[in-house]
Amino acid sequence: MSDTAADTGGRAGRRGRGGAGARRAARRGGAVRQLRAIERKIANFEVLGEEGLELIEHNAETVLEEIGLDFREDPETLAIWKEAGADVQGERVRFPRGLCRSLIKTAPASFTQHARNPERSVEIGGRNLVFAPVYGPPFVRDLDQGRRYATIEDFRNFVKLAYAIPALHHSGGTVCEPVDLPVNKRHLDMVYSHMRWSDKPFMGSVTAPERAEDTVEMAKLLFGADFVDQNCVLISLINVNSPMSYDNVMAGALKAYARAGQATIVTPFILAGAMAPVTAAGVLTQTLAEALAGMALTQLVRPGAPVVFGSFASSMSMQSGAPTFGTPEPAIVLYGAAQLARRLNVPFRSGGSLCGSKVPDAQAAYESAQTLLPGVLGGVNFMLHSAGWLEGGLASSYEKLVMDGDQLGMMQVMAEGIDLSENALAMEALREVGPGSHFLGCAHTQANFETAFYRSSIADNNSFEQWEAEGGKDAAARANALWKSMLAEYEPPPIDPGVDEALNAFMAKKKESMPDSMT
Amino acid sequence: MSDTAADTGGRAGRRGRGGAGARRAARRGGAVRQLRAIERKIANFEVLGEEGLELIEHNAETVLEEIGLDFREDPETLAIWKEAGADVQGERVRFPRGLCRSLIKTAPASFTQHARNPERSVEIGGRNLVFAPVYGPPFVRDLDQGRRYATIEDFRNFVKLAYAIPALHHSGGTVCEPVDLPVNKRHLDMVYSHMRWSDKPFMGSVTAPERAEDTVEMAKLLFGADFVDQNCVLISLINVNSPMSYDNVMAGALKAYARAGQATIVTPFILAGAMAPVTAAGVLTQTLAEALAGMALTQLVRPGAPVVFGSFASSMSMQSGAPTFGTPEPAIVLYGAAQLARRLNVPFRSGGSLCGSKVPDAQAAYESAQTLLPGVLGGVNFMLHSAGWLEGGLASSYEKLVMDGDQLGMMQVMAEGIDLSENALAMEALREVGPGSHFLGCAHTQANFETAFYRSSIADNNSFEQWEAEGGKDAAARANALWKSMLAEYEPPPIDPGVDEALNAFMAKKKESMPDSMT
Repeated sequence: MSDTAADTGGRAGRRGRGGAGARRAARRGGAVRQLRAIERKIANFEVLGEEGLELIEHNAETVLEEIGLDFREDPETLAIWKEAGADVQGERVRFPRGLCRSLIKTAPASFTQHARNPERSVEIGGRNLVFAPVYGPPFVRDLDQGRRYATIEDFRNFVKLAYAIPALHHSGGTVCEPVDLPVNKRHLDMVYSHMRWSDKPFMGSVTAPERAEDTVEMAKLLFGADFVDQNCVLISLINVNSPMSYDNVMAGALKAYARAGQATIVTPFILAGAMAPVTAAGVLTQTLAEALAGMALTQLVRPGAPVVFGSFASSMSMQSGAPTFGTPEPAIVLYGAAQLARRLNVPFRSGGSLCGSKVPDAQAAYESAQTLLPGVLGGVNFMLHSAGWLEGGLASSYEKLVMDGDQLGMMQVMAEGIDLSENALAMEALREVGPGSHFLGCAHTQANFETAFYRSSIADNNSFEQWEAEGGKDAAARANALWKSMLAEYEPPPIDPGVDEALNAFMAKKKESMPDSMT
Repeated sequence: MSDTAADTGGRAGRRGRGGAGARRAARRGGAVRQLRAIERKIANFEVLGEEGLELIEHNAETVLEEIGLDFREDPETLAIWKEAGADVQGERVRFPRGLCRSLIKTAPASFTQHARNPERSVEIGGRNLVFAPVYGPPFVRDLDQGRRYATIEDFRNFVKLAYAIPALHHSGGTVCEPVDLPVNKRHLDMVYSHMRWSDKPFMGSVTAPERAEDTVEMAKLLFGADFVDQNCVLISLINVNSPMSYDNVMAGALKAYARAGQATIVTPFILAGAMAPVTAAGVLTQTLAEALAGMALTQLVRPGAPVVFGSFASSMSMQSGAPTFGTPEPAIVLYGAAQLARRLNVPFRSGGSLCGSKVPDAQAAYESAQTLLPGVLGGVNFMLHSAGWLEGGLASSYEKLVMDGDQLGMMQVMAEGIDLSENALAMEALREVGPGSHFLGCAHTQANFETAFYRSSIADNNSFEQWEAEGGKDAAARANALWKSMLAEYEPPPIDPGVDEALNAFMAKKKESMPDSMT
């Protein structure tokens, strides 16, 4: 089995996706074959009928109208809502039925997030599916050093590996939290890492409104100020403080990005039983209400600003109270939330490849597959955490990043659905071979074999004896060798030296302007 | 985390399934809570539209009409086909268009396979889904002793563990191949093990027509001869010798069971690229043609005999030529084959929880989940190999049996779909808690918490620190402890001593009647 980065592409490059880019990349030498974002040719799996959808939509409006949402320590947002016709009492905002739904009509059904390499730009919405890596963990884990706090070096490594994984269409955001850098400055190095060590689209900082503004400024240096004002080059994650409240940090970042015409993902972040009711229908009702209000706020700030309906819902361990993943209840929620988003005509985001396991073992893989596949079948447009997530999001795993990346490649093929061309129908092969013979040598097999099956970068399909002779390694051990070879072979995408200089100058000036702080 | 067998039931027992049985079992003391077969409330995921379905159906008829199938060394079957109007030349049978399709109209759309404990009887067809364990491996594997040839003791252990896993609705057949027993007699001990150490429905021997007849005789001792003649108490696996041929062993067993009114599963067994074309549409065409002929043969032998459309299709490793599992191409085939079966109005069988890994690691779990979930969503009625399959079917794994069993429990919950009752909609909870608070203590959570979430028997969802303090075990290590405790706590279901004596007498007489043979 080969374990070079170039092998993680499966066969999909040949399927007419990214073909030209792949050839150009090959000519540049050393660069990896990349896949374009998925354009799903398969159906959406759905769990709710018309009646159920209307029931939940009705109840979400009731939540907005009768219970309302809090916007904390955020007079500007309260004023915006008052001006828009909402009932504002203290920090509580109650919304006339249909107000939020009506406001988000100006949001695009689909939009392009531009990458600095135009071949990596992604369309978010419609039948498209964009895979982005893990977001948020303060720890990293690998087989050699175990679990430890993440550093900016780990951050760069994850950016480089995400760049090298063909089916990761997006560089993501906080691929891990570089806790070795001051909190008030680390966003600069994180954003720069995405800009410099990858040419895929990426996410902006949301830990304070001014850090969101720094992200936009850096994007202007990379893309040009006019381009940024007229196009989406950033997408950023706004987690709702469920239940039913937004704090001024998240709402502040949301407004900063929306004002700049940049995309936000409004995500009710729900551990069912703690931040929402324990039932799927209850979670969906609350998710819809919270998402409606946040998405509507983006449109009040700047009509037409791209915004994504996000859902992150986990079940709970009855033993420990911890979130659990890959369980049936959140899958049901995901299918339903995707349906609700489609009815609002906005793109939909979920997680995927989630797990509660501490190590990249069978638990991690079962749970990851049981969150990844529902997302793909449910019709997700932007899937965060689709590779590398471990330990309920507390650790970014080097091994799991490449293992999940392999699964994403499989999903990319699966989403193509079934080929019914004359070649695929294979009647000539059936006639040629006939009863009792075999197809190995027939012309049809010869012509199609090389591209017929997804080729895994991780799976061992050798005989038991050969596997044993090669050391009897498990998947995690093979993944360990794979990510190391990918890092060793990594070559950075070219960048304009003047742009790079300007970015570094911006960061230096910012860093000098304030003392280090750990908040 | 508890690791007793009683904990592997998740919450589903409370969902009104098997409730009475569970209470009775509890009164018997020590017995496990069992789940009734799944009645799916979710939609079927489909990949083919009407046009694609008609195209493949048309092409399958062309294969039957123009290419035909071979029935090897089986003059009786050739005579049956000639009588039915087929064109028989030597061993090649060509079928007038529509003949097979027309013949299978007498096959039931759904049927009951009776278990000796009526509470364990299963309905096969319609929206039902029955999970059966791994079938066929000559090796077993556990963490303590590694990989070794299977024995009858292993066989009994797998029967007992399958009995103890609530979401395994079926005891299966060759849960492993007891190679310590003579080939010509081991079927007796295998069938007896299912009858004696479980009270779930089970599968019959197919390695020779006379062994199929032995199975039927033993079933008559257990169920009564009249009952067996009028009811289905056995289901047996008939693998087609793809491409496009049946040998006299498989066709012989098929006829023996059909004559006895017992169910068969006619399964084209396909490694794409070797036994069929490399393309999904080609595999589907051949699968349909082969299955149509076999299913029609059962109806010629005995109209009304229950028969299941089976599909087993794997992709191929381009490195080793070995079958690969959990890849996207076979998933597409499965969705399509299930659609073809539904249009024929017969039950559908697939594999599930398949993998090529040698050990119960992340590869095993990714691949298992990526075969299990497509089967559940695709609308499978009888899923063989749904727990315990390892190494491409060469080894039955003790650890994977219980890990997969846990996943089956999750699928059982997922197949319930979404609850839209007033309780589930949870509006009172949303009103009670409101913005910024939490749902942990509210009345709705208290009332629903215990049954709100599937409770995994394998997953560790404790904190990293607690997990580490408890030994930092991976899923396989926890599974090792679980199956041992399940075997330790196993109590056999009661059996009528007279029946037991008759079964043993039958076996003794059979064994005395012929010398041991290893063929």
